[in-house]
Amino acid sequence: MTTPAPNGNPSASALPSWSDGAAKQSIVDFVNKVATAGSPEFVPAADRIAVFDNDGTLWAEQPFPFQGLFAFDRVRALLPEHPEWKEKPAFKAVLENDMKALAATGMAGLVEVAMATHAGMTTEEFEGFVKDWIVTARHPKFQRLFTELVYQPMLEVLDFLRANGFKTFIVSGGGVEFLRTFSETIYGIPPDQIVGSSIVTKYEIRDGRPVLVRQPVLNFYDDNEDKPVGINVFIGRRAIAAFGNSDGDFAMLEWVTGGTGARFALIVHHDDAAREFAYDRKAGLAKLDRGLDEGPKRGWTLVSVKNDWKRVFPFDAG
Amino acid sequence: MTTPAPNGNPSASALPSWSDGAAKQSIVDFVNKVATAGSPEFVPAADRIAVFDNDGTLWAEQPFPFQGLFAFDRVRALLPEHPEWKEKPAFKAVLENDMKALAATGMAGLVEVAMATHAGMTTEEFEGFVKDWIVTARHPKFQRLFTELVYQPMLEVLDFLRANGFKTFIVSGGGVEFLRTFSETIYGIPPDQIVGSSIVTKYEIRDGRPVLVRQPVLNFYDDNEDKPVGINVFIGRRAIAAFGNSDGDFAMLEWVTGGTGARFALIVHHDDAAREFAYDRKAGLAKLDRGLDEGPKRGWTLVSVKNDWKRVFPFDAG
Repeated sequence: MTTPAPNGNPSASALPSWSDGAAKQSIVDFVNKVATAGSPEFVPAADRIAVFDNDGTLWAEQPFPFQGLFAFDRVRALLPEHPEWKEKPAFKAVLENDMKALAATGMAGLVEVAMATHAGMTTEEFEGFVKDWIVTARHPKFQRLFTELVYQPMLEVLDFLRANGFKTFIVSGGGVEFLRTFSETIYGIPPDQIVGSSIVTKYEIRDGRPVLVRQPVLNFYDDNEDKPVGINVFIGRRAIAAFGNSDGDFAMLEWVTGGTGARFALIVHHDDAAREFAYDRKAGLAKLDRGLDEGPKRGWTLVSVKNDWKRVFPFDAG
Repeated sequence: MTTPAPNGNPSASALPSWSDGAAKQSIVDFVNKVATAGSPEFVPAADRIAVFDNDGTLWAEQPFPFQGLFAFDRVRALLPEHPEWKEKPAFKAVLENDMKALAATGMAGLVEVAMATHAGMTTEEFEGFVKDWIVTARHPKFQRLFTELVYQPMLEVLDFLRANGFKTFIVSGGGVEFLRTFSETIYGIPPDQIVGSSIVTKYEIRDGRPVLVRQPVLNFYDDNEDKPVGINVFIGRRAIAAFGNSDGDFAMLEWVTGGTGARFALIVHHDDAAREFAYDRKAGLAKLDRGLDEGPKRGWTLVSVKNDWKRVFPFDAG
């Protein structure tokens, strides 16, 4: 168990993949402040809730959010049953691996592909598809399993917070049932501590067995202003620390830091094309623009992957 | 910490308010089976999830679900601002305390009263109303705070399960934000382990502060076939034990016991008019009909309040 140093200095052992500097110091200072008995800003353990975006915050999200890549692989696998897809623009773009053409189909095209690959089966069948994919599919740039593309420094933050009495939650625009198949293994976050997007499911008895069947209808899209909504309805407590990387996380960070008492917000800025990817103001759904401008003024920690992280992925040399 | 007796006999200390008998024995046997290392039906701690209905299962629900009584008190408090309510059948029935007239307005009338009293304020304001009410309002029959009307034997089950590695959740048709204001205090169940009904909330900045404003639109009604849906989307694991009392819990018990491995379901049958209330097949929303007929055939434990519980409420003589 990691314990904060009593004098507020970062413990070298707590965040070994973080370079010494303002970002690392801000994390350690916050934890010392809220978790040290007798501190004027002490927060009881029950209220030590931390929320993390997933794509781009806990694991990578380029060249396309990984759940999208899962969907594209499902399109290829299901193609024999759906020859008509070859004539549909969104599916055609996926089959030709033409991300620009896919983007041109807009949100409607993405939703069409998402529903075709995420609905129409039981929750158990869907879980099976994800579990098969996650242990075989490889990232196009790194040729690694997607579960290897987690950010080592963020894993250390998760551990550091939990060692100091925090309960850690994911609050992701990604699908909650997708995330749950591997979140406990790679992040130590159990299924009930994940807030995410979902589609409607319907209770049915099939062959005498109760099942939930996934419907091609959106239930909740956990992004932007709906991240605070998701935190409220799923977690029921305003977290005191929030971690994100894109403007889709802005409202979440604003909501969390808008509460009373000690609060903490952190934005990961992907500025390291050599070790990972560099993207920000023009990154489409992963855009970081308002956060870059306003985050620091609001007292939020801005992390430079290039400067603040000694290692990016667990497989990087330490 | 309570530990199961190694030979499967109920430990007298674990469930002191339960009479010796088949119901008590079934609980102890199940816990021994899944929580004892080396047992052929051992279940890892991470999968030891138990779900509890609230109204009629953890606390009383007569003469009307307590959240309804909260709403009625809110109607009376808000009446000066809404003179028009005197002419509206549902509100008129509430003001005259005429539950028959209210029932005659149907679900539409109940929803109208619910929305008028549960929407139109921030989540923090709503929490304040509930917190004020819960420490002052009294039950019409018992003249006790509603938080005193929890079932002592069920509190012991919650403790017994948790002492044996279970994570306990509430899965209620009641409002999740209502329940969360007191669930940790009275049940030891934190806000993020409550699945319940909810209305839509909307993120807004008011006077520079981010708030969530409760809208008069239903988001999720966590009852009947939607209880399994709620378990899936909020908890993400099929619980292995389920506790309920009305047919609104039937699908939840069916879903939980429909999984593989050791499973447990229990129905509280309210048959004790002297110490509490007696109601079942004709109890409207709290009806227990199908459960009485099919539960025992399915191997579910049927609890007679009269015979199986030595004490009903904590304030009863032991």
